[in-house]
Amino acid sequence: MRALVIGRYQPPHKGHVRVLSDIAAKFDDVVVGIGSAQTSHTHNNPFTAGERVWMLSKVMKQSGKGVFFFVPIIDVNRNAIWVRHVESMCPPIDVVFSNNPLVRRLFSEAGFDVRHSPLYEREALSGTEIRRRIVTGEDWESLVPPEVADLIKRVDGVERIRILEEKE
Amino acid sequence: MRALVIGRYQPPHKGHVRVLSDIAAKFDDVVVGIGSAQTSHTHNNPFTAGERVWMLSKVMKQSGKGVFFFVPIIDVNRNAIWVRHVESMCPPIDVVFSNNPLVRRLFSEAGFDVRHSPLYEREALSGTEIRRRIVTGEDWESLVPPEVADLIKRVDGVERIRILEEKE
Amino acid sequence: MRALVIGRYQPPHKGHVRVLSDIAAKFDDVVVGIGSAQTSHTHNNPFTAGERVWMLSKVMKQSGKGVFFFVPIIDVNRNAIWVRHVESMCPPIDVVFSNNPLVRRLFSEAGFDVRHSPLYEREALSGTEIRRRIVTGEDWESLVPPEVADLIKRVDGVERIRILEEKE
Amino acid sequence: MRALVIGRYQPPHKGHVRVLSDIAAKFDDVVVGIGSAQTSHTHNNPFTAGERVWMLSKVMKQSGKGVFFFVPIIDVNRNAIWVRHVESMCPPIDVVFSNNPLVRRLFSEAGFDVRHSPLYEREALSGTEIRRRIVTGEDWESLVPPEVADLIKRVDGVERIRILEEKE
Amino acid sequence: MRALVIGRYQPPHKGHVRVLSDIAAKFDDVVVGIGSAQTSHTHNNPFTAGERVWMLSKVMKQSGKGVFFFVPIIDVNRNAIWVRHVESMCPPIDVVFSNNPLVRRLFSEAGFDVRHSPLYEREALSGTEIRRRIVTGEDWESLVPPEVADLIKRVDGVERIRILEEKE
Amino acid sequence: MRALVIGRYQPPHKGHVRVLSDIAAKFDDVVVGIGSAQTSHTHNNPFTAGERVWMLSKVMKQSGKGVFFFVPIIDVNRNAIWVRHVESMCPPIDVVFSNNPLVRRLFSEAGFDVRHSPLYEREALSGTEIRRRIVTGEDWESLVPPEVADLIKRVDGVERIRILEEKE
Repeated sequence: MRALVIGRYQPPHKGHVRVLSDIAAKFDDVVVGIGSAQTSHTHNNPFTAGERVWMLSKVMKQSGKGVFFFVPIIDVNRNAIWVRHVESMCPPIDVVFSNNPLVRRLFSEAGFDVRHSPLYEREALSGTEIRRRIVTGEDWESLVPPEVADLIKRVDGVERIRILEEKE
Repeated sequence: MRALVIGRYQPPHKGHVRVLSDIAAKFDDVVVGIGSAQTSHTHNNPFTAGERVWMLSKVMKQSGKGVFFFVPIIDVNRNAIWVRHVESMCPPIDVVFSNNPLVRRLFSEAGFDVRHSPLYEREALSGTEIRRRIVTGEDWESLVPPEVADLIKRVDGVERIRILEEKE
Repeated sequence: MRALVIGRYQPPHKGHVRVLSDIAAKFDDVVVGIGSAQTSHTHNNPFTAGERVWMLSKVMKQSGKGVFFFVPIIDVNRNAIWVRHVESMCPPIDVVFSNNPLVRRLFSEAGFDVRHSPLYEREALSGTEIRRRIVTGEDWESLVPPEVADLIKRVDGVERIRILEEKE
Repeated sequence: MRALVIGRYQPPHKGHVRVLSDIAAKFDDVVVGIGSAQTSHTHNNPFTAGERVWMLSKVMKQSGKGVFFFVPIIDVNRNAIWVRHVESMCPPIDVVFSNNPLVRRLFSEAGFDVRHSPLYEREALSGTEIRRRIVTGEDWESLVPPEVADLIKRVDGVERIRILEEKE
Repeated sequence: MRALVIGRYQPPHKGHVRVLSDIAAKFDDVVVGIGSAQTSHTHNNPFTAGERVWMLSKVMKQSGKGVFFFVPIIDVNRNAIWVRHVESMCPPIDVVFSNNPLVRRLFSEAGFDVRHSPLYEREALSGTEIRRRIVTGEDWESLVPPEVADLIKRVDGVERIRILEEKE
Repeated sequence: MRALVIGRYQPPHKGHVRVLSDIAAKFDDVVVGIGSAQTSHTHNNPFTAGERVWMLSKVMKQSGKGVFFFVPIIDVNRNAIWVRHVESMCPPIDVVFSNNPLVRRLFSEAGFDVRHSPLYEREALSGTEIRRRIVTGEDWESLVPPEVADLIKRVDGVERIRILEEKE
């Protein structure tokens, strides 16, 4: 059995790690779809798909559970064909995990088994909160695995996020 | 050190496995770019990117060497920006392996260390030859790893390739 | 003489039927351009172009007036070429009916005879109001022809619109 | 029951009319997908989608059989999502008629009931032959319905096809 | 030495002229990138790229300083490849002038020498202010060079901007 | 009066210079549309639009005749809207010079005054011949202005063209 989980992972955080680990414990393979793969260098989407693949693979490799596929998914901006677009980029999927109503609806209409994804400390463990803290200078490193904090610094991500917040 | 190898893998064969294994033996990570990811169901490109990711991961997982990233690369049809496009989808790359003059030229102009990829029994071990044998009914299974042969059959790939060869 | 009317028809309602019938009474043919054809499964654009073609053809077929063409028009997001894009998808147009300032301006600059479209009970007879009532559970069926209400239910449209309104 | 037939109709000819009439006699509705809708003004694709919609509607309106939908289908150049693309532009389809191996394969993989389309005097009744005769000045009008011959002349189609054949 | 300055120039105004003249005084060539080149006929982007090239060339030709290139830059909506996209459309660039944090960041990451652009009377000399005054009927002509005012009138730009402000 | 001339200029040669100079002698402005602007690094299209703008501006600046606009024109691959696409990127055009039947036809259908472009020593003075000589090592420099030969060498164009000719 192979599960699909789609997120933007801007950046991957401890909530993602727990969700992916939970799912990996129950499935042979986990396909991690990296959404809005074409987007980067904006305040809400600071990292490239490649940087997100890199961060995720560093962290999930160490979880020791299951087989992970990290697949960049470029937006097609056409909901009616989006599920087929995702399918064409991934190994065959048996179950889809998502809490997003649109994602759930689209995969349901296409006949997939769609399940709710578990959530952990949603308020703190969110990309929005992490990016906010990076801008204000509050502690954000405790919200992400140490490998992710390390890679964010290696790509100069703190400075990148702060600068993208500035006004002209 | 991280190496990039780009191919279409239509389908992955024993030559690919040897090349990827050779490179994996010398590098920490190997990024396998799956080219023309948007193409499928044509005689020259029968399999979707997802099917090719699946086949490659089945085979290279078992090689036991290095860390592999399998990244679908959609064509952008603009050579001047193609290297940046590839970069944005991959973890940072140190060395590029390719024998294709255009790929070599584009990565060279962008300042990359570009090396020739080793080749094994190029005449038999090629996607073109494998697809030809599938159409004619000659032995093709000996040219691919058993896991690939198995997956080709599971997605009804033999029939797919034969039908796409038919004339209206 | 052939008239063009462009709308999104999300969904077609009794106001649309009256406008199209009025115009059909005065022209040989009426081309009904279905705008934002690529959009579906959003709160403001719940139905696919195909579903909208289907609904419109069910209703206007029965009006017994004139000849209708139902043509999906995909957005090109370039105003300077939009009129030519529309023209290339439609039989030759003599008159354009629209109340939208941008549409009127673009067709005027291209030399077309542009006229104001009649309006009926604009407040209630609008897609926005119908979608709002579907979410709240108020009566919406009286605002659309019975054939449209029937097709909305057949494609599970009530549930689709409600779910797309939900928050994650 | 609703049938889908896809063609390029460059231009519509007497063979198309017989096929569409045959199918219309057996189905409630016939969706006529006008393929490569974005293409025009080339030797192989001289007419715009709008011109082809116009020609087809003139001819099939007079056949007096069934309900026809004429739907321009823009190429997406991604076989894996093409069926969904077509579906999103058309009313729901029960049966697909095609003799093209790729079209047949793609709709079959998507679970559709795919049937062979009848053929009439394939050698003469083909767009290729009609365009060839227009260039050489041989009789082509006998191969198309008189309404189509009339519209081809009204859009200056004979001259357009001849000029597109010229060398620089 | 060749400098790049990117703006939308909706429309070009006296502030632009001073900035471009300042830069032209210090560099051999100035490449003026006309951003969002595909956009026109909206309230914020009323003029086509061609109209903006025309206006700029009329004004800067008369400044008598340096060599100007006016290059339309179509948005690609992918920040990670945008610098390469711009580069591929322009002669080789030595220095980039911009006050926009995103533009500055993207060119910096790509290794360019990025400098702040001088600003003159930012409050009045802005496209936003000029378009606002055109709508309200206040004096706007004093904010642009007379050649630009003339061309805006020749393309019926005053009326265009006012109409695009209207509600349906 | 403003004339438009469209070419690919791969690379600009002495024939182009004479044609552009001839036209510049008779018109106030000459818009030089640089076609297939998105293409580069192929055997038939070795240079980027930016490199071609650069070469043309070096040469035509020195002709001392008229005002030149050098405008990259990205292919849209839709003939029916191509003229509008070109128009939106250029200052208003009065006359179009072209010998290409398709270009002539499209601008004629759009109502433009289309004229034949003069030709000089077509056999030798062609991009195809120049690229062929670069590959074989024959004299090519005499076919282009010295400024173009210089820039081709500065961007390592000789090597680029030769390498793109190589087989894998």
